[in-house]
Amino acid sequence: MSTENRPVRWDEMTWPEAGKVTSDAVIIPVGAVEQHGPHLPLNVDTVICQEVALGVSALTGVPVIPPLTYGVSGSHGDFAGTVALRPETLIAVVEDVIDSLHASGVRQFILLNGHIWNNGSLDVSAEKLRVRHKDSRVRALGYVTMYPGPEVNGRVQFGRGLMHANFFETSVMLHLRPDLVRMERATSHVDVDSFWDYRMDQVSETGVWGREVSAANAEHGKAEFERCVQTTAQAVSAAVREPWPSSAHRPD
Amino acid sequence: MSTENRPVRWDEMTWPEAGKVTSDAVIIPVGAVEQHGPHLPLNVDTVICQEVALGVSALTGVPVIPPLTYGVSGSHGDFAGTVALRPETLIAVVEDVIDSLHASGVRQFILLNGHIWNNGSLDVSAEKLRVRHKDSRVRALGYVTMYPGPEVNGRVQFGRGLMHANFFETSVMLHLRPDLVRMERATSHVDVDSFWDYRMDQVSETGVWGREVSAANAEHGKAEFERCVQTTAQAVSAAVREPWPSSAHRPD
Amino acid sequence: MSTENRPVRWDEMTWPEAGKVTSDAVIIPVGAVEQHGPHLPLNVDTVICQEVALGVSALTGVPVIPPLTYGVSGSHGDFAGTVALRPETLIAVVEDVIDSLHASGVRQFILLNGHIWNNGSLDVSAEKLRVRHKDSRVRALGYVTMYPGPEVNGRVQFGRGLMHANFFETSVMLHLRPDLVRMERATSHVDVDSFWDYRMDQVSETGVWGREVSAANAEHGKAEFERCVQTTAQAVSAAVREPWPSSAHRPD
Amino acid sequence: MSTENRPVRWDEMTWPEAGKVTSDAVIIPVGAVEQHGPHLPLNVDTVICQEVALGVSALTGVPVIPPLTYGVSGSHGDFAGTVALRPETLIAVVEDVIDSLHASGVRQFILLNGHIWNNGSLDVSAEKLRVRHKDSRVRALGYVTMYPGPEVNGRVQFGRGLMHANFFETSVMLHLRPDLVRMERATSHVDVDSFWDYRMDQVSETGVWGREVSAANAEHGKAEFERCVQTTAQAVSAAVREPWPSSAHRPD
Amino acid sequence: MSTENRPVRWDEMTWPEAGKVTSDAVIIPVGAVEQHGPHLPLNVDTVICQEVALGVSALTGVPVIPPLTYGVSGSHGDFAGTVALRPETLIAVVEDVIDSLHASGVRQFILLNGHIWNNGSLDVSAEKLRVRHKDSRVRALGYVTMYPGPEVNGRVQFGRGLMHANFFETSVMLHLRPDLVRMERATSHVDVDSFWDYRMDQVSETGVWGREVSAANAEHGKAEFERCVQTTAQAVSAAVREPWPSSAHRPD
Amino acid sequence: MSTENRPVRWDEMTWPEAGKVTSDAVIIPVGAVEQHGPHLPLNVDTVICQEVALGVSALTGVPVIPPLTYGVSGSHGDFAGTVALRPETLIAVVEDVIDSLHASGVRQFILLNGHIWNNGSLDVSAEKLRVRHKDSRVRALGYVTMYPGPEVNGRVQFGRGLMHANFFETSVMLHLRPDLVRMERATSHVDVDSFWDYRMDQVSETGVWGREVSAANAEHGKAEFERCVQTTAQAVSAAVREPWPSSAHRPD
Repeated sequence: MSTENRPVRWDEMTWPEAGKVTSDAVIIPVGAVEQHGPHLPLNVDTVICQEVALGVSALTGVPVIPPLTYGVSGSHGDFAGTVALRPETLIAVVEDVIDSLHASGVRQFILLNGHIWNNGSLDVSAEKLRVRHKDSRVRALGYVTMYPGPEVNGRVQFGRGLMHANFFETSVMLHLRPDLVRMERATSHVDVDSFWDYRMDQVSETGVWGREVSAANAEHGKAEFERCVQTTAQAVSAAVREPWPSSAHRPD
Repeated sequence: MSTENRPVRWDEMTWPEAGKVTSDAVIIPVGAVEQHGPHLPLNVDTVICQEVALGVSALTGVPVIPPLTYGVSGSHGDFAGTVALRPETLIAVVEDVIDSLHASGVRQFILLNGHIWNNGSLDVSAEKLRVRHKDSRVRALGYVTMYPGPEVNGRVQFGRGLMHANFFETSVMLHLRPDLVRMERATSHVDVDSFWDYRMDQVSETGVWGREVSAANAEHGKAEFERCVQTTAQAVSAAVREPWPSSAHRPD
Repeated sequence: MSTENRPVRWDEMTWPEAGKVTSDAVIIPVGAVEQHGPHLPLNVDTVICQEVALGVSALTGVPVIPPLTYGVSGSHGDFAGTVALRPETLIAVVEDVIDSLHASGVRQFILLNGHIWNNGSLDVSAEKLRVRHKDSRVRALGYVTMYPGPEVNGRVQFGRGLMHANFFETSVMLHLRPDLVRMERATSHVDVDSFWDYRMDQVSETGVWGREVSAANAEHGKAEFERCVQTTAQAVSAAVREPWPSSAHRPD
Repeated sequence: MSTENRPVRWDEMTWPEAGKVTSDAVIIPVGAVEQHGPHLPLNVDTVICQEVALGVSALTGVPVIPPLTYGVSGSHGDFAGTVALRPETLIAVVEDVIDSLHASGVRQFILLNGHIWNNGSLDVSAEKLRVRHKDSRVRALGYVTMYPGPEVNGRVQFGRGLMHANFFETSVMLHLRPDLVRMERATSHVDVDSFWDYRMDQVSETGVWGREVSAANAEHGKAEFERCVQTTAQAVSAAVREPWPSSAHRPD
Repeated sequence: MSTENRPVRWDEMTWPEAGKVTSDAVIIPVGAVEQHGPHLPLNVDTVICQEVALGVSALTGVPVIPPLTYGVSGSHGDFAGTVALRPETLIAVVEDVIDSLHASGVRQFILLNGHIWNNGSLDVSAEKLRVRHKDSRVRALGYVTMYPGPEVNGRVQFGRGLMHANFFETSVMLHLRPDLVRMERATSHVDVDSFWDYRMDQVSETGVWGREVSAANAEHGKAEFERCVQTTAQAVSAAVREPWPSSAHRPD
Repeated sequence: MSTENRPVRWDEMTWPEAGKVTSDAVIIPVGAVEQHGPHLPLNVDTVICQEVALGVSALTGVPVIPPLTYGVSGSHGDFAGTVALRPETLIAVVEDVIDSLHASGVRQFILLNGHIWNNGSLDVSAEKLRVRHKDSRVRALGYVTMYPGPEVNGRVQFGRGLMHANFFETSVMLHLRPDLVRMERATSHVDVDSFWDYRMDQVSETGVWGREVSAANAEHGKAEFERCVQTTAQAVSAAVREPWPSSAHRPD
């Protein structure tokens, strides 16, 4: 773990410093600017993901680049405000970012995702990286993947309802940016399991997908946020020390 | 369920028949032609996925198109035989297939995946479909997603080792195409959990990733295959009858 | 010629076998899924092309990969059932397939075409291959190009009318897949020579383009099919033994 | 036929004139800038094709746009001087040109090709036009396709040897631009039939492919050129008057 | 001018607020993450451009979206740290951003550029916007374009030397983010006029291009920054009130 | 300066001559085919740019390739006649042309532009060249950039009104191609300064943008044209002799 507990911001270094950075790993936060119901700002995914990334960097010393602010948000449909990239555009952006960082000596790439509809594009980016840069390794993961899930807090789990502008996201924003949360407009939307993956405007006219949103609170948000940071940091810290594998035959 | 228990093959219809097909759903099987160790043929993923798709079609009456034979297999690295599409190419193929089927009246699209590295591209395809065809719905799923996992058979689970040229795939191929399996060359590779998602040639020189491969048998393969078909068919059968959702506000 | 007269199916080999295949040539069948009138199934072009390719492989020992099932069929227009790729998509698919096979050691590429509207894309693919892989050679040809034409059978020639869902294709399908032919719905369409290359829906509401379709028969189909196989096999057999050329000046 | 026998040059009109042109057809000449042996300039294909196009325009009154000067010439290989477009680039250029002309009211498109390796790209362009502009019709043809071939002149035919920097092209250039022909460096290259379509630098170190080149003469070139113009003009003149087809069923 | 003098941050609004924003104009800041000599951080262009954009928004009430952080920086060459997009990637990003904002009702687009090598891509973006969204208007401009140039401050002008990691940028960063400036490593590079536009690594091994860099100071930076903000704000304020033009003939 | 004062036309050379050309620089003229008011032909930009390029070649001995006839003209809007490339298409064309010329040994590339809306695409092309061909240098410039502007002639300057189908262009065309100018239809359009960059059809129904067009004359056109040629030739002549830069540190 880093001794100073300050994040290593790639973009605040000079070029000679970037050439001498001790870690050959980097964290690439990927967010979104998209509708989050009537009570949350458009920037929820970018704000949370960037804050988690900075926290992880502070705990591990792995540098973090500025977030890819815009993501794949077309599946919200016709809400105002959303600024969406086509999947192909995000794939191109990540390819260029990875190629540049690789030219600077980076060999371990953590694509830290703050928006679930980015998953497909980031999986494609990981595939392309594996094929293109044979000396590198990659992992695309969501910042909430690394911890056991909200039920560890003793609360009931909300299935897919966990996903958007919900109790969890509202709580974390109340912790990180309470000035941007309009709790007086908070509302819930009873989530329903379905086979199909619908557009948001097909299933929720408010843009909210989750229960008990008005019960969100900063205390819960702080606990969840810190758990996200610490669990991800433990994984990343172990990852950058993970030995490079051998392909030698290992029969059982 | 279909009364006749025969699959509805889209490509065996004439054009007037295709214009009058009763279901507006379709199954799109997506496979791969790639190394599967020294004992399995290159076509494992396409064979199994196509057979599952035909079985599901027979049980549900949902038409199935010929498989997208080639998939995203670049992450195997330098084994001979693999024929891989770039992710962008698969995305383009699926886009064209979907646009054509939509022009023929299809409104429910099931992307049935037989190869895990296709996931990113198919997620991107689903995203593009949702945005492009507002009157349609889509689901990308693996044929093994729909059932509870091999542990229900009483066997221990093999973690990621489940994935490639392993006990499961070998058993299913012994059931479906025993003429193509060279059991005398079957070997195992002790799988290890890792943070990073490596290329196959970085972690297994044989191309196998899984334990107890030589214990594979047709009986187990038959049971697993039938479970895949039936569980997927139940989900698909329910899916095509799933009411289209309302977006009306439903507070808790 | 191969001693065993069985086709060499690339996808049924294991990867070590694919690395040791004796021929450095490969046949890439390219078909289509598109309307073929009220009496033929959508898969005519893929079925015939694949069967010819397998026959040629059996006679020559040159491996054949699974067919590129979908082709450039947009020029049919508004018939139901057709599943068409954009030309650019087929070009991308062939580029990926060729690059993969080249990485496996293939140096002679036969693009065997079963659908005339694929011609432009395959010519582009050949051009790209010639420029990209300087150690390779390529030929794009239709399976009917290699034989002198139907008139050798003593029948009159039907000009452009030869082309679609006609006497020839119906006969060959009656030989290969009689279960898929609905002869009771067979009809003809008097072909007319024209300067312009029209969409099919501009010139034939049935999707048929050819005369005497109801006279089609399996016997004729068998003779035509076998002639296609044998003539193409002779050409391929000579092609893989053709000496690599010299560019040395040879004035007359 | 036009009464004044002057070509109608699209680019010499003002915009109000272009909006009132009487023909809704246009000729799009497509050439190449590529090696033509030690005795011919790089611009042979563009020069001849443009001159044929102007001649056809003069005889028919169909407007002609400035030539697409550069073509798909990568298959020459490592000769100096060639300026080649990728096939995809030519396809994009033709798509833009066609879309612009369609917006100006053009509905009949003649892609007049002066370089055989452009064929694939122009076939793709024709396919895209047919699908994209449903009210239009298209034909891609070479300027030498419309006449019966050199053998009608009583000379022996040279098979594929007809193709590049040969007796025919040299003769036509001696007629059109004698100042650019270096007959003192003219040489022949004995053409050989082959199965494969090779790069030029694989088969001819001089870049010539044809016999009796030093026998080329302006008189023969003039006759051939005029035959190309007149035969193409007859076809074009009939084409623009060809009735639009009916798709009504016409059984035999 | 806005009464409250606070910037209107698009991403801090909720979606209902974004749907009711009073201005139909938006500012899109475009920066870069690239080497800026041994004394300035990689993020200079994004920091300054974003701060100017926020200042302009505060003075005019025109909303500003989060900066496009990464730009076209490949022409620096082999310095560490730079994270560059290909021009095509930036064009795709801006196209998606503009299409999203247009769907939210925006009709006036100000592409505010903080990095000169973005110019070509942004000009292309403006061209594409003009053609694609016929009801909109666009302007791509640098934040330093709107004011008369540094000479108004009484200092001599430094020609092209004005451009990179120079007296001007260093001074502005000393004003905005003094914590990120390493003045002890500041150095100059005597700029030379040239016909050609070189890569940075061809002309300056330090990555600096400008004189008197060590004389940079926060006071000058503050004056320059404020002048950039105010001059740009005046132009923007007038622009959003500029009447939509008439195309009626106005002869002199 | 060239002793013979004749342009060096790349396309009139044979390939052995192109391989031995003494200059490693080349001029790439880029024009447009687009509306130029009711009195000028569509080809103004290509004609003038090509003539300037030929004049510069004659004075400097730098070879010139045939013009890229079509440019980025979509921003004119709905006038008939214009044949426009998408910006991406022009970028692809220039990339291919540059790659081909580089393979022929060219290392200095002058993109000589005759149409202002090509600027963005050519700047992108220059950026791509700098990154892709590290041993080369490039400059994109307009043929009117190199000289001090029309005011040196003693006439008043017309601001942006200088730009399209105006006094300047009309005069130059009266000098170069008087047969194509319809002075009886010449009209002016009072130009107005604006913040936004509008489409032409938004600001001028005639397609003219400039004053005193009917005063245009061949004498003025000849003087302007010759000044363009000579000033550009001086710059080019110096440019090809400009020493390659050193990146060594040069502090002030």
